[in-house]
Amino acid sequence: MSARNWLLPEYVEDMLPAEARRVETLRRRLLDLFFVHGYELVIPPMLEYMESLLTGTGHDLDLRTIKLVDQLSGRTIGFRADMTPQVARIDAHLLNREGVTRLCYCGSVLHALPSGLNRTREPLQIGAELYGHTGVESDLEIQRLMLAGLAAAGVRNLHLDLGHVGLFRALVQRAGVGAELEADLFQALQMKDLPALRGLAAPLASSSRAAILLLPTLYGGPEVLAAAATHLPDEPGITACLEQLRALVAGLDSDVSEVMVDLAELRGYHYHSGIVFAAYAAGSPNAVAQGGRYDEVGKAFGRARPATGFSMDLRELAALVGVDNGPAAILAPCAQDAALAAAIAGLRGAGEIVVVELPGQGGQAGHTAVDRRLVLAGGVWQVAPLHPQ
Amino acid sequence: MSARNWLLPEYVEDMLPAEARRVETLRRRLLDLFFVHGYELVIPPMLEYMESLLTGTGHDLDLRTIKLVDQLSGRTIGFRADMTPQVARIDAHLLNREGVTRLCYCGSVLHALPSGLNRTREPLQIGAELYGHTGVESDLEIQRLMLAGLAAAGVRNLHLDLGHVGLFRALVQRAGVGAELEADLFQALQMKDLPALRGLAAPLASSSRAAILLLPTLYGGPEVLAAAATHLPDEPGITACLEQLRALVAGLDSDVSEVMVDLAELRGYHYHSGIVFAAYAAGSPNAVAQGGRYDEVGKAFGRARPATGFSMDLRELAALVGVDNGPAAILAPCAQDAALAAAIAGLRGAGEIVVVELPGQGGQAGHTAVDRRLVLAGGVWQVAPLHPQ
Repeated sequence: MSARNWLLPEYVEDMLPAEARRVETLRRRLLDLFFVHGYELVIPPMLEYMESLLTGTGHDLDLRTIKLVDQLSGRTIGFRADMTPQVARIDAHLLNREGVTRLCYCGSVLHALPSGLNRTREPLQIGAELYGHTGVESDLEIQRLMLAGLAAAGVRNLHLDLGHVGLFRALVQRAGVGAELEADLFQALQMKDLPALRGLAAPLASSSRAAILLLPTLYGGPEVLAAAATHLPDEPGITACLEQLRALVAGLDSDVSEVMVDLAELRGYHYHSGIVFAAYAAGSPNAVAQGGRYDEVGKAFGRARPATGFSMDLRELAALVGVDNGPAAILAPCAQDAALAAAIAGLRGAGEIVVVELPGQGGQAGHTAVDRRLVLAGGVWQVAPLHPQ
Repeated sequence: MSARNWLLPEYVEDMLPAEARRVETLRRRLLDLFFVHGYELVIPPMLEYMESLLTGTGHDLDLRTIKLVDQLSGRTIGFRADMTPQVARIDAHLLNREGVTRLCYCGSVLHALPSGLNRTREPLQIGAELYGHTGVESDLEIQRLMLAGLAAAGVRNLHLDLGHVGLFRALVQRAGVGAELEADLFQALQMKDLPALRGLAAPLASSSRAAILLLPTLYGGPEVLAAAATHLPDEPGITACLEQLRALVAGLDSDVSEVMVDLAELRGYHYHSGIVFAAYAAGSPNAVAQGGRYDEVGKAFGRARPATGFSMDLRELAALVGVDNGPAAILAPCAQDAALAAAIAGLRGAGEIVVVELPGQGGQAGHTAVDRRLVLAGGVWQVAPLHPQ
């Protein structure tokens, strides 16, 4: 195999100018939206000791994290595969504020392996997190912000999937299920593997068994919540979960065209503790944004704080919202001429792209989208069509 | 030693809101400046095969690069320690344009070890590169862009150091020096170790010896160029270097307060091929920006292209330009009220930060810089001082 120096590793890609411009535009639009909602930017490092990177996150993230030995300390460090635990660490220890803290972030994360075909190993993660509040108002604020972000990015025809990991947690607790069976039930529910689920639930008491087997059927419009209230056990832990979902559905009424409730949705079960959600757009098989409540994360850092947040991959988002050709440029001659320099500075100050034609370039524009030219006419530098008619 | 999960590896740091905001502001200001000059953004990946990461760059970068085995391919991959070779690869192979190409970039790079005390292992590199032009006009454009960027960032009292690695190259070639002696002479010159330099140059012919020993004295204002022309051998390779420096000094006349010429400056000798430069600001021992011509880099990718460019570290730049307190926020109540929602949306649309006070927050602002409050007065939502007088 000949070494071709310009080949990249699999599932790793450059962003060329058209894509990079689109990503940059979306990045600014989303961050600006987060800023005016009071979310403050933090920039955690690319690498950390494994203990802190994985704190409170479960086994999945461990397998996804690229690890190596730190040359300075001899300890194992990892490249972040998710920025959420980093931001939780910042809230818990660096800011150490009482009350509500709102933070946002944007940066590359790395995965040891791609999470699927056509997925990159280097997502560009952007997101927002709200710490220090347990009520449904903060879930609502976070989900509204996510939906506003997707709308600002130009994503149309969204639907939102809502779930609540507390429901399954309450059901297994009620059934007195051990950790091993809980993990197996979780697995079967995640895969929507009904035969396996029936087999696993068989030894349980009948009301618990019925409730667990009911979960995969509780998927659909908000009417699912009424069905759940009727058929699931009438216990405070369960009622509270359904009540939270009901408040959320009512509050999101005007923000999204369609809300689906999926009571078997357990994405991030080891991580999340309450409401979980994901937004889907027509034309994209993967969620374009997702998040949830994870009140336990801070605990491992020594300061448990309620938290809810969401994240998305700017690369996937940019691919979804289509091509923008970007602004066209003006070609200017290269000369030591004060009037020319002033004309160029004026145009650039007004936001125009002005590209100087260097000597010997021989008419090559040197820029993909030149459509005008700066010419001296009547003693004044002015913008003219690139090809005079 | 007890494991404290929130400690970061040495020479690795979080950026908290005040610093992150400053960095984000500078990032946008610089990229916007590059854009209106016709430089197009590219975003190369964090990791690449070592062969392509190190192509054309020399041994220093190899030692600085964090390496690991790619789980997918079994090959050695590295985390970029410098984005310049990546951008050269993009120019050489992905864009494959004839004529001039202008590219810019901004992203984190990682170093296995810090390059000095008080240096981070994760600089946030930003820069611009111009490919496909050999004349001094492109050196001038790149240096002017760098100086305009530093001015836009608010750096004052700059001075620019100019050198030319072609000069030393021409002198060792003329003296017929072998690779080993060349490396030793280079080392001694870099360290400004005059006794070592005298010892190493002793076996050379007298005119070559005199010329090499003269280099460390050729440091100062532009008059150094006249001294060099008088005392260095009158040969085309040497005269051409001095002529390029002279043109550059003349062209930069109005862009920077002070230009220093340093003919023993060989920073990036294994990498650069022509003019090299660095900008220094009062109060910072390290260069705030640096660059040079490196016409050879593309060759290793199979497509040699003339190139000149510069880069800076946004972290160091942000530290230099001082603190900006950022915009203050408006606190709004949390209520389902269409008029309130409209008032909040209007303020945010106008760029104001509006933070919603969540139920149970008990007057905690939840944002570091709240100075006003949205109140209902006379049936209209309006902005009032936080603490009524």
